Amino acid sequence: MKTSSKNTATLILTCPDQMGLVAAVSRFLFDYGGNILHADQHQDEESKVFLMRIEWDLNNWILSEENFDIKFQPVASRFKMNWRLSWSTRKAKVAILVSQFDHCLADILYRGRIGELDCEIALVISNHPGAHELTQFYRLPFHFIPIEQKDKATTENLQMELLYKNGIDLIILARYMQILSPKFVTAFESRIINIHHSFLPAFIGARPYHQAFAKGVKLIGATSHYVTPDLDEGPIIHQDVVQISHRDQVSDLIRKGRDLERLVLSKAVKWHLENRIVIYDKKTIIFD
Amino acid sequence: MKTSSKNTATLILTCPDQMGLVAAVSRFLFDYGGNILHADQHQDEESKVFLMRIEWDLNNWILSEENFDIKFQPVASRFKMNWRLSWSTRKAKVAILVSQFDHCLADILYRGRIGELDCEIALVISNHPGAHELTQFYRLPFHFIPIEQKDKATTENLQMELLYKNGIDLIILARYMQILSPKFVTAFESRIINIHHSFLPAFIGARPYHQAFAKGVKLIGATSHYVTPDLDEGPIIHQDVVQISHRDQVSDLIRKGRDLERLVLSKAVKWHLENRIVIYDKKTIIFD
Amino acid sequence: MKTSSKNTATLILTCPDQMGLVAAVSRFLFDYGGNILHADQHQDEESKVFLMRIEWDLNNWILSEENFDIKFQPVASRFKMNWRLSWSTRKAKVAILVSQFDHCLADILYRGRIGELDCEIALVISNHPGAHELTQFYRLPFHFIPIEQKDKATTENLQMELLYKNGIDLIILARYMQILSPKFVTAFESRIINIHHSFLPAFIGARPYHQAFAKGVKLIGATSHYVTPDLDEGPIIHQDVVQISHRDQVSDLIRKGRDLERLVLSKAVKWHLENRIVIYDKKTIIFD
Amino acid sequence: MKTSSKNTATLILTCPDQMGLVAAVSRFLFDYGGNILHADQHQDEESKVFLMRIEWDLNNWILSEENFDIKFQPVASRFKMNWRLSWSTRKAKVAILVSQFDHCLADILYRGRIGELDCEIALVISNHPGAHELTQFYRLPFHFIPIEQKDKATTENLQMELLYKNGIDLIILARYMQILSPKFVTAFESRIINIHHSFLPAFIGARPYHQAFAKGVKLIGATSHYVTPDLDEGPIIHQDVVQISHRDQVSDLIRKGRDLERLVLSKAVKWHLENRIVIYDKKTIIFD
Repeated sequence: MKTSSKNTATLILTCPDQMGLVAAVSRFLFDYGGNILHADQHQDEESKVFLMRIEWDLNNWILSEENFDIKFQPVASRFKMNWRLSWSTRKAKVAILVSQFDHCLADILYRGRIGELDCEIALVISNHPGAHELTQFYRLPFHFIPIEQKDKATTENLQMELLYKNGIDLIILARYMQILSPKFVTAFESRIINIHHSFLPAFIGARPYHQAFAKGVKLIGATSHYVTPDLDEGPIIHQDVVQISHRDQVSDLIRKGRDLERLVLSKAVKWHLENRIVIYDKKTIIFD
Repeated sequence: MKTSSKNTATLILTCPDQMGLVAAVSRFLFDYGGNILHADQHQDEESKVFLMRIEWDLNNWILSEENFDIKFQPVASRFKMNWRLSWSTRKAKVAILVSQFDHCLADILYRGRIGELDCEIALVISNHPGAHELTQFYRLPFHFIPIEQKDKATTENLQMELLYKNGIDLIILARYMQILSPKFVTAFESRIINIHHSFLPAFIGARPYHQAFAKGVKLIGATSHYVTPDLDEGPIIHQDVVQISHRDQVSDLIRKGRDLERLVLSKAVKWHLENRIVIYDKKTIIFD
Repeated sequence: MKTSSKNTATLILTCPDQMGLVAAVSRFLFDYGGNILHADQHQDEESKVFLMRIEWDLNNWILSEENFDIKFQPVASRFKMNWRLSWSTRKAKVAILVSQFDHCLADILYRGRIGELDCEIALVISNHPGAHELTQFYRLPFHFIPIEQKDKATTENLQMELLYKNGIDLIILARYMQILSPKFVTAFESRIINIHHSFLPAFIGARPYHQAFAKGVKLIGATSHYVTPDLDEGPIIHQDVVQISHRDQVSDLIRKGRDLERLVLSKAVKWHLENRIVIYDKKTIIFD
Repeated sequence: MKTSSKNTATLILTCPDQMGLVAAVSRFLFDYGGNILHADQHQDEESKVFLMRIEWDLNNWILSEENFDIKFQPVASRFKMNWRLSWSTRKAKVAILVSQFDHCLADILYRGRIGELDCEIALVISNHPGAHELTQFYRLPFHFIPIEQKDKATTENLQMELLYKNGIDLIILARYMQILSPKFVTAFESRIINIHHSFLPAFIGARPYHQAFAKGVKLIGATSHYVTPDLDEGPIIHQDVVQISHRDQVSDLIRKGRDLERLVLSKAVKWHLENRIVIYDKKTIIFD
């Protein structure tokens, strides 16, 4: 697989715009033997915030992971940077939460197997037993945690315990139909990706395909986004749509939507794993 | 031009589903020498309503326009049909209303000139003087009717007078930014097509590109729809979207949106003129 | 599943255009209690051939499958029709041929399981052993038939024997990388669907993604088509494309192409199974 | 207009990959007061060539246009750079060549008028008199130069004289249907953009829509590319496609194609004018 042979580091940062930023960062990388492979810099016209993603080859790199912080801190302080670093050698650990419909789960597990997603899928949690066999096929741990309507907190505690124990970096809600508590969401801030089956902000809430059918729209959409305590309001990562016609009943919308959901969710997950996303001003910036 | 050489009639009808419908209509056409060129029939699963569009060659047709009603009425009554007939030989008369931005106007006038739209553009009305020169270039009458904010009724009366006097069949709101009164809308029910610069129902109302930018969506859209007294709520005819990125400021959204708006509006107008649209249950059905 | 509850028949026909065709067919259906659900008729302007797809409800239908031929033959003869009838109650039997890459196979098996494809997948044949486990997961027979390069005829004989024995109606080449002999192709004329990983007719032959990369195109495509003895020249069923950029290496084209291939192949299979395709003049007509 | 208020410089360069490149360039810009607005760097994996586009604000810039070369040359030499610089204050001068069909011409003239294209359209040359009135409407010089089939060289000499006299930076072939000689093409190398009405490399040569119709493809496309002495073989800038169906005759392909051609050509022109294109290895790289 292509991804496994990579030996790179990726730095993402945002800061108030100022002259000399790019020079300072590229000089820093040069000083420690980093050969830049890709870089993308962008000044937000309205807020005058500067955003950068920079990926470099580690073959001649002489600074250890532990010492990066110490050495980079002076540069970061000078320019008031928010920054995040990732090493291609350290694979993110991922958990998937799923309910009754398993098309997104099946898709992500398949992509994981053939090496499209640079991560380790550590476990699958579901409030339905149905996905057990599929998960088993991919030789992954499956945890069936039914929802106790009266005591959702207990359910979430069980889930969170599993997630912590497994050192999970990213949670994928692959058509997980339960609302997560603010406590849960806050614990994994900017690390939960959901797929909503409409082009948000249209058709927020339940049964978006039924809403779309009733409204008579000519396109249905899907939206992947980070989860925040406000339902369906988190920063949007990716969206796509497909044309529908009067020949399509709700069941056709659901069918066509499955293809959309798979693509829109998996692309968001891929971008997150490749450290291409900055959350900024309740929106995302994708360095693709 | 292809359109001018056509010699066809098109019948559109809806009725409660019942056996023998297609047989009755096709037999009727056969009896009077109509050779069917295209037909499309569809049963709506939920409402059990049957919908049909049928277009036939008039070369051997022996029934006059005047007598069609008399002869077809028994068939229509038996099946409780709502129906509408159009003759390719009779060109629809069109009026365009426009405000400050003239990209949709320029687009429709150009398409009209090269024969893409099977209609006669009879006049252009604007509350801005700016489009005068462009309209003149296409040798069409231009009417500058400023909006008196205190007395919008007078403005609308002037507009309606012009529309009636010219026997207008279809009104195109080509980025006309004034809200029409229920009286106006009702007078031209199902004969006013608007372009809204968002994928409705998202971003209803004013400045949708600014709303989209603030929300951080990854797609912007445009929607053409029939106008009803409820603002931005009329039956949707066509929608399309285009991807945007963090590099796009509001001005880029506006620019990219212009291309969308032109395409989405002109397609709706074309379908209307070709008698391909049925309004049904607050939605449209497009026989494309 | 929606598909299983259907009780309909579908007739597809082509014939020289002539008045009275629709009337004759719809009258025939009416006489035997057929309630038309959907119909689509079309006259090809250039060749003056008439094409029709008509689907009706069988709930009050009084003509048996056996007698349909006898009763319909006079109508068909009068208008010189080529016609084909299918009953929703009789599920098509499908075989899948696959080589090394199993993404299309995995996709079709999944769609089969959740009821998207109205067929019975009877077996999977591969010249690689790799897909065994996946096929087994779906509880389907897997046949590993290696290709003897010196004696391809023997391989094909083994394959054909299996196909005949299982009464296969449709063969899906799900990235099957061997060329089929004219004998094989002729034996299953118009019943083999292939996926080619380019927008044909561009990049015919081997390694189309490498060809596309070398050429510097900005879109890659996929094409599903019926297989004829001329390689990559059979009637095209469906095509789609995706944008690529200079950031995409060949491996990215291959990855992006997988998503295209899955969608483009499965759509063609679905249309075939729903009897929506007419092959006509080396092209297809899709009654969607 | 947004474009006119810009005060930036853009540097595009390619060179063999080497450490310290970004540091050297960004340091150079910093030293002369350049505030980077957008930058994009990319290493081509296969050829190990490094490509960069960098745009900076000129508000505090202290190096004159004349001195840029002198000061930058040492950096460029050290890294063996091919580089190109453009100043937003200097508008490119553009000529449009057109034949019978004027939809691309009309589109570009309109976009020019409303400020979408950051250039000065200096003149229109045509081998048909038809576009005179349209050009005049936009108050631009129109030159009717008929093609003498026996003496094409004379025609080209007249054209080239006009282009030189007007100091033309970019030539747009807006459906100009004559083949340019190698002499002409070489004289304006990398400065002629053509629109071809197919998704190249499919349907090279004449009448691509007729070829597409005959082949039965399900998509038609358009391709904008730089012109080289090899017909339809120059580096591709942009491509897009639109779905077609059996209901579309050749005339419908031509109509649908017009919308594609306009969009695909104008996007290429815009990117060229914004200095976003590098021609490299017979392909283009678009820094969008």
